[in-house]
Amino acid sequence: MYDIMNARGAHEKVIETPQHLKETQLSGEQIAKCLNVMLDRIGDLERDPYIKYVLLFKNYGMAAGGGFIKHSRTQIIGTPINLKRVKEELAGTKRYFDYKDRCLFCDIIKQELKDGRRLMAESKNFLAIAPFASRFPFETWLLPKEHSCDFYKLNRDYVPDLAMLFRTVFAKLMKVIGDFPYNFVLHSAPFRRDAGKKGYWETIEKDYHWHFEILPVLTRVAGFEWGSGFYINPLPPEDAAKAVREAQVTV
Amino acid sequence: MYDIMNARGAHEKVIETPQHLKETQLSGEQIAKCLNVMLDRIGDLERDPYIKYVLLFKNYGMAAGGGFIKHSRTQIIGTPINLKRVKEELAGTKRYFDYKDRCLFCDIIKQELKDGRRLMAESKNFLAIAPFASRFPFETWLLPKEHSCDFYKLNRDYVPDLAMLFRTVFAKLMKVIGDFPYNFVLHSAPFRRDAGKKGYWETIEKDYHWHFEILPVLTRVAGFEWGSGFYINPLPPEDAAKAVREAQVTV
Repeated sequence: MYDIMNARGAHEKVIETPQHLKETQLSGEQIAKCLNVMLDRIGDLERDPYIKYVLLFKNYGMAAGGGFIKHSRTQIIGTPINLKRVKEELAGTKRYFDYKDRCLFCDIIKQELKDGRRLMAESKNFLAIAPFASRFPFETWLLPKEHSCDFYKLNRDYVPDLAMLFRTVFAKLMKVIGDFPYNFVLHSAPFRRDAGKKGYWETIEKDYHWHFEILPVLTRVAGFEWGSGFYINPLPPEDAAKAVREAQVTV
Repeated sequence: MYDIMNARGAHEKVIETPQHLKETQLSGEQIAKCLNVMLDRIGDLERDPYIKYVLLFKNYGMAAGGGFIKHSRTQIIGTPINLKRVKEELAGTKRYFDYKDRCLFCDIIKQELKDGRRLMAESKNFLAIAPFASRFPFETWLLPKEHSCDFYKLNRDYVPDLAMLFRTVFAKLMKVIGDFPYNFVLHSAPFRRDAGKKGYWETIEKDYHWHFEILPVLTRVAGFEWGSGFYINPLPPEDAAKAVREAQVTV
């Protein structure tokens, strides 16, 4: 009934610049370098058979738990068990796949590109949207247009394109809401070393779709959120996306 | 697959004192009055057939989303659907009941009273503990010793005893950590008007056990928590409980 987490794992910090530069000041080229380092590190952690999942995240600004640190950085945590949140998301996308025989995120991408109201920015291979049921004002997801369940199998040729979309999205968000505290989390499939073994999700490569989530900390998670698991968001995602989409920036 | 929440519901605020008194300054007698008002309000909301669940919570202090309000208050939200968090907890206690044929919380209470290491305070009919897997430093649960799935069926004779335990626990917590921001949430069973109908949990009266959770906001929910669903808590619950248990207060 319980997963007991043993003490084995990994915790790494990627210092993304030798200068005192904040997250929001990195150039597209610097972001591309960082993404490549992260892909290298995840690839290396995959070789440790005890690590089942690698969580990649950023905490920026005091309100987001980022402290006073002056160098842009990303944290990488490798855990010996699969994570509660990840399992819930995998179960959700599997339910949808069982029902529709299609990837939930591919359907969302198709719908958002067609509808346009929640689209924030788009590049050749990626898009940024305000999700339909945004939990937070200016919540932003970056997804690859091409179906893939794991970030760490990303074709390196796509890295500069993804980096420039990050650069653009952060510049646009800052133009609209200023220098904002945020949490940033990669959602990707767990390592699939046990594929084919009993109990393993056979369809994970088809039903899951990796993406990044940017969660600005402009509201408070309080009693209602703790008690309900729902989120009070005073800003419709369509309004957030419109403001971001129309913000003029030079990157 | 989705619950769509319609616009019907209730949102009430109980102003707990006519004076500028903070949550932590109420007397046992005032707390008892407030508890009785809440029982009255929940009883009244039960008569609205559209309301399926009543969530009772407090946000105290800026970091907990409590704002600058100077009057102690509790919020009551009646929702037309059952809540995600509530359903998860009900499903968890049902799983335990199916396995053991006993209430999970009754077993926890028995174990914590016997063990003593995580016990914070105790009254005739209630106890306060630091839960075994505390998510936050000084997380505190108040539970009735007698099995019951719903707070709103509480015997009114027990109210003064519960109020005094609240008073004692808050005084002890403040002695240890000062005037702390916190969220406070009632966990109780949904209304059971549909009991017996198809799909309804037949065993809810046996397997669920109401309780209050006090969640001090001393740490930040950040990227790791959002990505994993796990919580980094730097303080073992045994240490928190010991400090609170041993704090000398006059109430």
